[in-house]
This record gives sequence, C-alpha cells and structure tokens, in this order.
Amino acid sequence: MSWGLENLPYGVFSRHEGETPRVGVRYGDHVVDLAGALHDEVFATGSLNAFMSRGPVAWRDTRTLIQNKLSTDRAVVEPHLVPLDQVTLHLPVEVADYVDFYCSLEHASNLGRMFRPDEEPLKPNWRHLPVGYHGRAGTVVASGTPVVRPSGQRGAGVFGPSAKLDIEAELGFVVGTPTALGDRAGRFEDHVFGVTLVNDWSARDIQAWEYVPLGPFLGKSFATSISPWITPLAALSEARVEGGRQDPEPLGYLRREEPWGLDLRLEISVNGEVVSRPPYRDMYWTPDQMLAHMTVNGAALRTGDLYASGTVSGSGPGERGSLIELTWNGTEPLKLPDGSARTFLEDGDTVTITATAPGPGGSVITLGEVSGRIEPSR
Amino acid sequence: MSWGLENLPYGVFSRHEGETPRVGVRYGDHVVDLAGALHDEVFATGSLNAFMSRGPVAWRDTRTLIQNKLSTDRAVVEPHLVPLDQVTLHLPVEVADYVDFYCSLEHASNLGRMFRPDEEPLKPNWRHLPVGYHGRAGTVVASGTPVVRPSGQRGAGVFGPSAKLDIEAELGFVVGTPTALGDRAGRFEDHVFGVTLVNDWSARDIQAWEYVPLGPFLGKSFATSISPWITPLAALSEARVEGGRQDPEPLGYLRREEPWGLDLRLEISVNGEVVSRPPYRDMYWTPDQMLAHMTVNGAALRTGDLYASGTVSGSGPGERGSLIELTWNGTEPLKLPDGSARTFLEDGDTVTITATAPGPGGSVITLGEVSGRIEPSR
Repeated sequence: MSWGLENLPYGVFSRHEGETPRVGVRYGDHVVDLAGALHDEVFATGSLNAFMSRGPVAWRDTRTLIQNKLSTDRAVVEPHLVPLDQVTLHLPVEVADYVDFYCSLEHASNLGRMFRPDEEPLKPNWRHLPVGYHGRAGTVVASGTPVVRPSGQRGAGVFGPSAKLDIEAELGFVVGTPTALGDRAGRFEDHVFGVTLVNDWSARDIQAWEYVPLGPFLGKSFATSISPWITPLAALSEARVEGGRQDPEPLGYLRREEPWGLDLRLEISVNGEVVSRPPYRDMYWTPDQMLAHMTVNGAALRTGDLYASGTVSGSGPGERGSLIELTWNGTEPLKLPDGSARTFLEDGDTVTITATAPGPGGSVITLGEVSGRIEPSR
Repeated sequence: MSWGLENLPYGVFSRHEGETPRVGVRYGDHVVDLAGALHDEVFATGSLNAFMSRGPVAWRDTRTLIQNKLSTDRAVVEPHLVPLDQVTLHLPVEVADYVDFYCSLEHASNLGRMFRPDEEPLKPNWRHLPVGYHGRAGTVVASGTPVVRPSGQRGAGVFGPSAKLDIEAELGFVVGTPTALGDRAGRFEDHVFGVTLVNDWSARDIQAWEYVPLGPFLGKSFATSISPWITPLAALSEARVEGGRQDPEPLGYLRREEPWGLDLRLEISVNGEVVSRPPYRDMYWTPDQMLAHMTVNGAALRTGDLYASGTVSGSGPGERGSLIELTWNGTEPLKLPDGSARTFLEDGDTVTITATAPGPGGSVITLGEVSGRIEPSR
C-alpha cells in the first residue's frame, strides 16, 4: 500500500468537535492515535512541537517503535487505529518563524526576466548564498483552509482585489531541535524533523508594487498552506541525491557534507487537471545549505520553525512551479483540459500540490497533499 | 515621581531563579505583583499575552483598578510591592509575528542615498504605502541580553564578522486583540495594547550584499532588543499629535481617523554618551496606518504581534536614529566625549535608547529603556 510502514507521516487530528487535537501517523487509510498506542502524553498536546523538541534520537526510536508495533503487535495497536474519514486534520505544527528561500535557478531567472526585464535576471548575490526572507508565521494554514482573495495596492493610487493571484509550489522543512542565540546549527538531520508541501500563495500585482526595497510583504502574507502530514526525513532515505551542481564553489560554511538533494516529483493541479510537474532534485541550493545559511549569523532556531525552498521550477516547459511562469506573466494563457483558460487564479479554483519520492525496495513514498480553494475578496 | 500613577507600564519579572515569571506594573522603584494584588491568575502566566488577549475593555478596567488600589487602598497593595532591584526582568511578550516598517521620510531618504547613490532616494511606492517586511520573531530579546557580533557574507566570496554593526532606534507596537484570517483590523486602539522601544540591530555589510531582491534577512535576524516595559496606550493620551503631513493624500484604507502621531523624544547613548536625539512626532506614517496596511490583505493578527516604526530619524543633524546615518556610512566618524571615535559599533560597546513623552498635568511619561552590549563574534 502507498501509506505503509516505510512512510508513516505525522499529523494532528481530532475525532469530534471540541476534542483537543492529538498527534497520529498515517498508516493506509487509518490514523494511529499515538497517545493511546504508545502511552505517551507528548502526543496529546495539540501539535507536533513537544514531540519534535525531544530531538533526533527520540524521532528514530519512536519511528522504530511504531513500525514494530504495526508489524508484530497489531492486536495491541488495533484499538488505536482511527479511520481517516472519521477525523479532522489540523495544522500539524505550531509554526514559530517562517522563512522562504529562493533556491531554484530556473524560478529566480524566470522571475528576474519578468520583474526586471532590463537587467541580468539573477542578482549578483544569487549564486553565492541562498537568498531568503521571513514570511508571516501566523498565516500558515493547513491544507483545505479556504484562501480569501486579498485586496491591496496594485500601483500608485490603485486599490482592489488582486487580479494576479498565483501559487508557488514549494517544499518546506520543519525544525525540531532548537539552537541557542549566537550559535550556529549543527548537522541538518539533527535539527530538521521532516518535510511538508507548501503552497506560498502570491498576489503578483501587490508584490510587484510593494517589494522594493524591503522585499515581499502583503503579496504573500495573506496565506501560506501546508500539508497536514509531515514526512519524517527517515522516510526519504532512498530519495537522497547530490543536489544541483554549483558554480562557483560555495564558501566553507555552505559546503555540502552529505547529499541532501531530494528526488521528489511534484504535481500541480488546478481543478483536478495537472498543469505542471516540477522536479525537486535539481534545485540549486539544498536544504542543509539553507539551514547553515539561516543560522550562520547566530540567529536562534526554535522548535516549529518552518523554512521553504522557494518555488520549485525545472527547466522543461511543463515543469514550472507558479502560474506567473507557466503563463509568462499572463501573456500565454494556460489551456485547461475542460476547455477553459487561466492566466492567474479565478474565484472558486482549487489548487492541489502532490508529490512522491522513491522509497525502499521500489516502493513509493507519497507526501501529504496541500490543497486550497479561492474565495472571493471580502 | 517619574514612574507614577499616570505611567504604570507592564512587564514580566521573577524574584528568584526558577520562579515562573509574573506580570507586574512598574510604580516608582517597585514592581506591583499583579497576580497577588489583583487575585488574577492571568498575571502568573509568564508573559503579557494572556492578559492582552482579553481586549481593550479589560485593559482599561485593569488600569483603573491598579490606579485606585495604589492611591486609596495602599495597605492592601503593600505586600505585593517588590523592590525593582530584587527582580529579574524578562521579555514581556511572547512575540508572535514581528514586522518592521520604514516610516521615517528622513531615514528612508538617507538610506536610499547611501545604498543606491545613482537613483532617486525614495522608491516610487514609498509615499503611497508604509513599506514594511517581516523580521525574525524568535530573536526578539529583552533589554540587557548581550548581542553577539554576527558573521556572514559581506560580498562575493567574503566572509567574516560584520565590520558595520549598527543600531536602529525605533518605536514598537504590541498587538493584544487578534483578527480572523481574511478580516481587516478595526480601530488602532482596540487592537494595540501598548508601545515599547526597539533596537533593531543591523549588520550593514551583510545587509547590503544580501538584500536584493527579497529584502533584509541575516543582516537583521541575529537580534532585535526591546524594553522590558510595555507602556499602555492609555499612558500616552497627552502625547498624541497629528503625525507628519502626507502628500499625496493616502488611499481610503490608510486615511487617519484620529491623531495617532506621538510626541516622543528618543535619546541614543553609546557607552553612556548621548549621540542622537530622534524626535518621533513627525514620522511620515503613523501606527494606525501601519496597522491598517498590514491587515488590508486579510492577514490575521495574533496576540503578541509586534510591529515597529522603522528607524526614527529627524531632519536635524543630531536627530538621526542609526550610526550609518550619523556617520554617513562611516565616512564621518562620530566623536564621543571620552575622546574616542566611532563609525560602527565596537566589541564591548553598550547602546541604550530611552524616551519620554508628555504626561497629564505637566508630568513626564518615561518609557522603559532598551540596552544591549556587543560581544565579540564566536
């Protein structure tokens, strides 16, 4: 099955209104209620944060324990299996800080060509460091949360609902182990608990007007959706690859010690029709480099920090991770198989991002999907 | 006295190691232990957040109650007065999201001239909206926390401790009343609980290299210091002024309904010597406008959100709020009265920002100072 012992992503669920949400792992079409199955109250706290703060040894031991119980101790687990269709899934992580990077060479080049047509598409710093910025942690929402079309300034004296509402298909990394102020992070796998799919909704008209010189703000802060399931790094061992080739060689603190590129294949659907298949494996900056960069100045990490890759865009025509690239800023509308066309998102559209990775023994690891429907502006 | 009944700022203190920090108000040289004096456990929760989330009616009633008890019921309060020199002060607020604006016309113009000498100093959007961006909430620290000099990239292939470590003297606004995702904020005074002084430490060399096109990141994220005392808006009623004149007239959602400019006089000291006296009253964008802008796209507010004004710089020679402006990017060193000179900060330097405002009946409202000492890079 596609959600077997080799996968086991973590999420937060409730069985009825009013119940304090609890941590579970997905197993087939069920959720294992971990507080019950493992007799550990850390899983009854409403988010993954308390468990994640225990660190990498606890993460590994817990995964082994769950795998053992599910494979050899099934009768004991049985009472704690809840059918997936009987639960509500919640935001799995209490997000501390949210950082968004810009790690795809193709995406950064495409955006540069569109936003700054008279300049070199890449800024001089781009190949020297993973460019990133802080986003709004308080508007990170769980998959399924409706997204209200934002209003804002779209130019001097021009105000109204965004006419260029877009998506960004990204991979997010969830921090479990914190650092102290003034310290740098150690090994990637000692700090990062797992990954999630991210849709960094973007209002391109608001963004284009506001973003100089301090970066994107209201064009992004209205909503960022993530999967309800956090896939632990341990489930991605077969997906690890070298990551994109880098020229020039990065500075010492950014040198890759181990392969943390990830062979993930993403799919973006609009109203159920696939519009793009971005490959994650060739991203220029890998997540270990993002972590090293984010903390090289001594900035502390907290349990629950979320950082995202930036839009995943490949070099092929059907591999771009945003509508602004797929339609070249609206000049080449996308034909949907139902006969309609899209430049940017319309009210009522539903966007879903899915992803798979190679698992052990030829299996496939499926990531939790992230989905959202556009509601009209208020 | 200068911390009398008309002031009463809120802070979080502990009396001995291991005690869960408690909320108090400063009164003279004492802290009133509110959990004890008011018999309310909301003040025994380690931060101001639980109290702030009760909203503006509770803020007003609590202030009146404290004032009444201190003036007419002194014997009852007496056992709950703790001498200030017997307490440790903590970060008063659990910071949710941190946003930094850029609201001083003089500061934005000065930075534009230095960072982009070949262009108009102000970007085309600056007079149309309060430009802002998200900072790192997890590295907002209490006054007195040492600041480790950050290391980072200062150009292509150049790495090392920042050689241009700077300050930014700002006023911060603390949100008490949240909003739902998709909604806009209502009246400023219904959402904002109070103000704090902010030192937004800045590594100018790191910032200059990294900030295009997504804004400041590691040049800022290593530390942001705030006062231990949050001054409630009610203490600033006599300080309210119209705010700077605006041309062009802002769009409807940014129109000022009431005067929320504030006649605050800031002072910046380096190692005890005053180097600047920035006036807050003429800032171009007022805090009610920042709040309206920040939520016009439906971004939710959370209790504990902190947003800051950006560097407060006046038009006079001794009124600039950062060293990069006071020394014109290091080209005009600042002479300290002790005979030494500064371009940017040196290890061991202590920077302190203070502020006062007019209070009722000719009294003076003193804000809690924010101070920090530079430690060598690690």
